[in-house]
Amino acid sequence: MAHEESAPDTSYTPTERTVPTRARERAAYDHDTVHAILDAGYVCHLGFVRDGDPIVLPTLYGRVGDRLYLHGSTGSRPLRTAGETADPGLPVCVTVTHVDGLVLAKSAFHHSINYRSVVVHGTARQVVDPDEKTAALDALVDHVLPGRAADSRPGNTKELAATAVIRLDLREVSAKIRTGGPNDEPEDLELPYWSGVLPVAPVYGAPIPADDLAPGTPQPPYLTAR
Amino acid sequence: MAHEESAPDTSYTPTERTVPTRARERAAYDHDTVHAILDAGYVCHLGFVRDGDPIVLPTLYGRVGDRLYLHGSTGSRPLRTAGETADPGLPVCVTVTHVDGLVLAKSAFHHSINYRSVVVHGTARQVVDPDEKTAALDALVDHVLPGRAADSRPGNTKELAATAVIRLDLREVSAKIRTGGPNDEPEDLELPYWSGVLPVAPVYGAPIPADDLAPGTPQPPYLTAR
Repeated sequence: MAHEESAPDTSYTPTERTVPTRARERAAYDHDTVHAILDAGYVCHLGFVRDGDPIVLPTLYGRVGDRLYLHGSTGSRPLRTAGETADPGLPVCVTVTHVDGLVLAKSAFHHSINYRSVVVHGTARQVVDPDEKTAALDALVDHVLPGRAADSRPGNTKELAATAVIRLDLREVSAKIRTGGPNDEPEDLELPYWSGVLPVAPVYGAPIPADDLAPGTPQPPYLTAR
Repeated sequence: MAHEESAPDTSYTPTERTVPTRARERAAYDHDTVHAILDAGYVCHLGFVRDGDPIVLPTLYGRVGDRLYLHGSTGSRPLRTAGETADPGLPVCVTVTHVDGLVLAKSAFHHSINYRSVVVHGTARQVVDPDEKTAALDALVDHVLPGRAADSRPGNTKELAATAVIRLDLREVSAKIRTGGPNDEPEDLELPYWSGVLPVAPVYGAPIPADDLAPGTPQPPYLTAR
């Protein structure tokens, strides 16, 4: 059994579906790498099966230790589905991807993307404990903008009731990373085409105050930290 | 039948699963909106079902008219799966998401994200026609960097044989868009927290030439256009 030969505590144990069929050198399982990729983002793509077909929806997430939390309206489809299947839970796949650069090779074939991604397989379950739910929602807000949860009005009873939170334990997890320049064929190197990497990263612009924000309201420091 | 009451040719016909259960005013089905969102990106999240479980993987795509093309190694898992199920094809969900801003409300509950996303449901099939395959691969390269396909060495017979391309017709498609500031509760407006939007967009850096690029190779104009 693969699970018997467990990796050190600092790594997630690879499984059949977290070992890529190719480019295995790009895969990583250690906590530091996986958590850093997760913490660098806040939008994931949540996959689940509905009536036998795959559904992939973008949604926000937060991480607390070895758990991911996702939330949504109690009326939304995936959350409702997870609720209806609270036991045994909803099989999901959560994927987080950061694009770091466009890799331009001499040949069309060797064009690629520099990226960091994490894929999590598991079973999502509704969070019903009120304390865990509150902590999860704080984590979700702070994932988008660290420090913001404490600097906004917490959810009231009605809002918490309207919000569904699902939990996904980080167990079957892998990261995949590509860095560096193009891997051209030696015989292509004399071709006249430019080759290299065009870096790309999300850049935050100047904050736009809400129309109904009282004039003179100071900009919090965590805004400019992004 | 919903399909009998078809929308005008310039829109995709909504179906049960492309009409959101909430925030319906954010949904759009017209070709212009959907295609613009697809054309603004090049990485999608491909969802499919394997052994009953959902799998979500980031991958490149290109659009040609009302078709999406995705590619990968013939050895990769989703492509292999699509190949094994060439008839009747592989049910997939392809989702493209652009994040445009972080929406900070006075209340934690009303925090949100400005975004543009497209979700495509359908059946992916292997592309076997050599001309369609070549055109699809050109579209994939040009989707990442318009103009690049003609400015690189085309795939040779061996490379084309090692590359699998799948096709997904755009039929069951929806866009979802959120723009603008936070929607705060009137009674929250006097709270001291800053509210508004922090815009975000991908920004391309200075091109990094490959280590093995001949000195003096000119930078193509499409690089600086990104």
